Amino acid sequence: MKSSQPTMKDVAQEAGVALGTVSKVFNGIPVGESYRAKVEDAARKLGYQVNQYARGLRAGSTSTAALILPGVSHPFFAALAQYICTALARRGYRMLLYVTASNPELEQNCVNMVRQNKVDGIIGLTYNPLVVDEDLPFVSIDRSFHPDIPCVAADNYGGGRMAAEKLMELGCGHLAFLRTGSARPGEADKRGDGFEMACRARQVPYETLRLNDGADWERFREFFRSHIKGGRLDIDGIFCSTDLMAWKIQGILEAMGFRVPEDVQLIGFDGIRRFGSEELYCSTIIQPVQKMAETSVDLLLTKDRSNIPALICLPVSYAPGGTTRE
Amino acid sequence: MKSSQPTMKDVAQEAGVALGTVSKVFNGIPVGESYRAKVEDAARKLGYQVNQYARGLRAGSTSTAALILPGVSHPFFAALAQYICTALARRGYRMLLYVTASNPELEQNCVNMVRQNKVDGIIGLTYNPLVVDEDLPFVSIDRSFHPDIPCVAADNYGGGRMAAEKLMELGCGHLAFLRTGSARPGEADKRGDGFEMACRARQVPYETLRLNDGADWERFREFFRSHIKGGRLDIDGIFCSTDLMAWKIQGILEAMGFRVPEDVQLIGFDGIRRFGSEELYCSTIIQPVQKMAETSVDLLLTKDRSNIPALICLPVSYAPGGTTRE
Repeated sequence: MKSSQPTMKDVAQEAGVALGTVSKVFNGIPVGESYRAKVEDAARKLGYQVNQYARGLRAGSTSTAALILPGVSHPFFAALAQYICTALARRGYRMLLYVTASNPELEQNCVNMVRQNKVDGIIGLTYNPLVVDEDLPFVSIDRSFHPDIPCVAADNYGGGRMAAEKLMELGCGHLAFLRTGSARPGEADKRGDGFEMACRARQVPYETLRLNDGADWERFREFFRSHIKGGRLDIDGIFCSTDLMAWKIQGILEAMGFRVPEDVQLIGFDGIRRFGSEELYCSTIIQPVQKMAETSVDLLLTKDRSNIPALICLPVSYAPGGTTRE
Repeated sequence: MKSSQPTMKDVAQEAGVALGTVSKVFNGIPVGESYRAKVEDAARKLGYQVNQYARGLRAGSTSTAALILPGVSHPFFAALAQYICTALARRGYRMLLYVTASNPELEQNCVNMVRQNKVDGIIGLTYNPLVVDEDLPFVSIDRSFHPDIPCVAADNYGGGRMAAEKLMELGCGHLAFLRTGSARPGEADKRGDGFEMACRARQVPYETLRLNDGADWERFREFFRSHIKGGRLDIDGIFCSTDLMAWKIQGILEAMGFRVPEDVQLIGFDGIRRFGSEELYCSTIIQPVQKMAETSVDLLLTKDRSNIPALICLPVSYAPGGTTRE
C-alpha cells in the first residue's frame, strides 16, 4: 500500500513554480506568501516527505525539537501545539511534546529530560526561570524570563489599547478592565496596561479589578453591585483579560438581569473558537497563534544567533463575536 | 536552580507505601488503583523523574513513542494527546506528536517517518489501512483497521443505546438519530446502531438521518420541517452523533422557534467541555478519554504480545448538560 515517493520536481510541477522556489520553501528561506502557499498545498496534495530532503542538509543534528506546555487541553495551547508541530514538520523536524501542568519543578524536570534527550532546541511556555544549556536554543512563548532567551508573544499591550478604543468607538463612556490569572508576571499583564493607557489618553473614566487565579467570582458580582446606580449598571463597556473570563462575566451579568451587549458591551482576549474551529465565544482581540508558532520555530532554527531579539510582539486583531454592538 | 533529584525511596516514603510498590507502578506492573494513585501523586509532588530509572531497565529501547492524530485543535484530540503524553511520561517514555489533517497520504508518510525515526511504538487515530512494520507495536484509537492491531475505543454501541434509553426515560415517545461524519467506516458508526437497537427493543418509533462530512445543514432544517405537525415538532427526543452536532442542531431548532429542552430534548456524544475544562455544551454521552489514553499506552508497552485483544471498548457515562429535562 506504500505509494511511490513524489520528488521536489513533482511538487514544483504541481504547484506551477520553479524548482528553486520549492527548495527555498523546504529550507525555510523566505519567498512570497502566495508561492509558499502554492508549494505547501502541492506538497500536501502529493504527500511529499519534506524531511527526507531536509535531513540530509543537517547531518549531525537530531532533527528533533521539544515543545514544553502547561497542557494542551486549553484551546489556546492546543492551537499552539498544532501549529508548532506543523511548522517544525515543514522544516523537517519532529516534535517531542512535554506537559508540565505549570508545576515549577516539573518544568525544570522537563528541561533536564530534554537536555538528556539531545534535541536541537526547545520552545516553551513556562512560568519560571529555568536552567538551560547555553548552547541549546530556547524560545519562550508569552514570558520574557531572561534577556538572552527570545520571547514570542502577541502584542498584548496593543491589544489592550485596541479593546479600549473599540469600546469607546462603540459608544461606551465608562469602562472597566477585569482580570484573573497567574500571580507570576508575564506578557499578558500588558493587556491591562494598554487598556488603561488608552482610557487615560482619551480621558474616559475606567475601573479595574485584578484577581489571581482561583479567584472567587463573588468578588466580580460585588464589583457589579457596587456599580448599580438607579437600577442600571454605570459601566457600559468591559474588557476581560481572556475569552474564558468574558464568557464567565457574561453569565454573571445576565444572571443579574443585565443584557449583553444592549446594557453593557464585553470584549475578551485570545480568539478562542468553540470546538476548536467554530464560532467565537465573544467579541475579542485575536492572538495570531499561527504566526506566533511559525515565528517561534523560525527563531529556534535560525543559524546566526548573534542578533536574536529579546522580545517579538506579533499584531493582534479585533473580531466581533456577539458581545458588542459590532 | 537545579533541585536535588528525589529517589524511589523518597517517593515510597511520601506515598506511605513499600518500595516494591513504587517499583511496580513505575514499571507498569498492575497494583491496586489506590496504590497507583498514591505513588503517582507522590512522584508528581516530589518531581520524581520516572524515566531516569525506567530507561535503565530498557537498555536498547528508544524510550520514545509516537502519537499520530488528525490534529489537536479539536478538544477531543487535545484531551487525548494530553492524557497519552502524561501516561507515557509516567512510564518513562517521551512522546513524538505527528498531525496528519486526516489526509491518507500524510498518514502513511507519518508512519514511514516514524519507522525511520526508530521509536518503540505508535498510537494512532488514523482513517486508513496503513503499512506498519510487524515488529513495531501499533495501537489504533477509534478505528479497527486490522485484526492484528489492537483498537481502543469508547463503548460507542453502548453509548448509543444509553442515549436512546435516557431519552425514553425522560418521556420522549418519538426519537431521532442525526449524524454527520466521515464516510469511512469507524467505531463511531456503532453509536447509531446501539440507538436503533434500543428503540426497536422498546418499540418506540424513531427516525434517522445520516449525512457525510461537509453536509449542508439545510438538509437538517428540511428534515425538521417535514416533521412539523399542527405547528409542533412530532419528534421530541434527538440523539446527535457528536456534541458539536448537538450544539449546531440546537441552534437550528431554536432558530425555527422550538425550545430545547422544553419542546425537544437533545443528547450529544463526546463530553466536550467549553474552554477544555468548563461546562458541557449539552447533555451528552461522555467518552472516557483518560482511560482510553491509559489503556492505549498499557497495550503499547505490554511485553507479551501473544494475547493482545483486537478491540477494547471502555465504558461511557451519561451527564446532563442543559439540553434534556435532566
